[in-house]
Amino acid sequence: MGEKVGDIVIVSTGDTSEYALRAIVSLRGLSEDEVIVIKGRGDFIEKAIDVYNEMKSRMGDTLKLVKVNIGSERVGRRIFPYIEIKVKI
Amino acid sequence: MGEKVGDIVIVSTGDTSEYALRAIVSLRGLSEDEVIVIKGRGDFIEKAIDVYNEMKSRMGDTLKLVKVNIGSERVGRRIFPYIEIKVKI
Repeated sequence: MGEKVGDIVIVSTGDTSEYALRAIVSLRGLSEDEVIVIKGRGDFIEKAIDVYNEMKSRMGDTLKLVKVNIGSERVGRRIFPYIEIKVKI
Repeated sequence: MGEKVGDIVIVSTGDTSEYALRAIVSLRGLSEDEVIVIKGRGDFIEKAIDVYNEMKSRMGDTLKLVKVNIGSERVGRRIFPYIEIKVKI
């Protein structure tokens, strides 16, 4: 858990490609000890993985998957499952 | 990736609690170097995380999250995103 978070991309109702591009642009500005977090909750967990898969198919081995966290968290009155996908270059 | 897989629980249209119970029962029979894999594809990725969260809330710190893998794979003619949640006790 020692990674510094350079940017968080929260995946929701937008286009998968848009989130992937946003994250790829963010990766360019990272310092060496930083990661980008791609985060999705509830129905957007699958899309968060789609975003990672699209980045992977564009970037190949340049993209490193650092860690995947899962869990649940309260948002307002409801509890949602979430995924956090940490990547770097 | 050095863990031996003791059992795989594939999450699909059944009840979250049923999968959680099945995985908990499987955990009992594991030897020390083995893990259980909870796997979900596409629409069942969120439910796979729900299964993990239910196991966690029942078992607390007894349940160890070993690793989470994500990716995409071909099933028949389609490509699906997937999640594999590796747990042990």
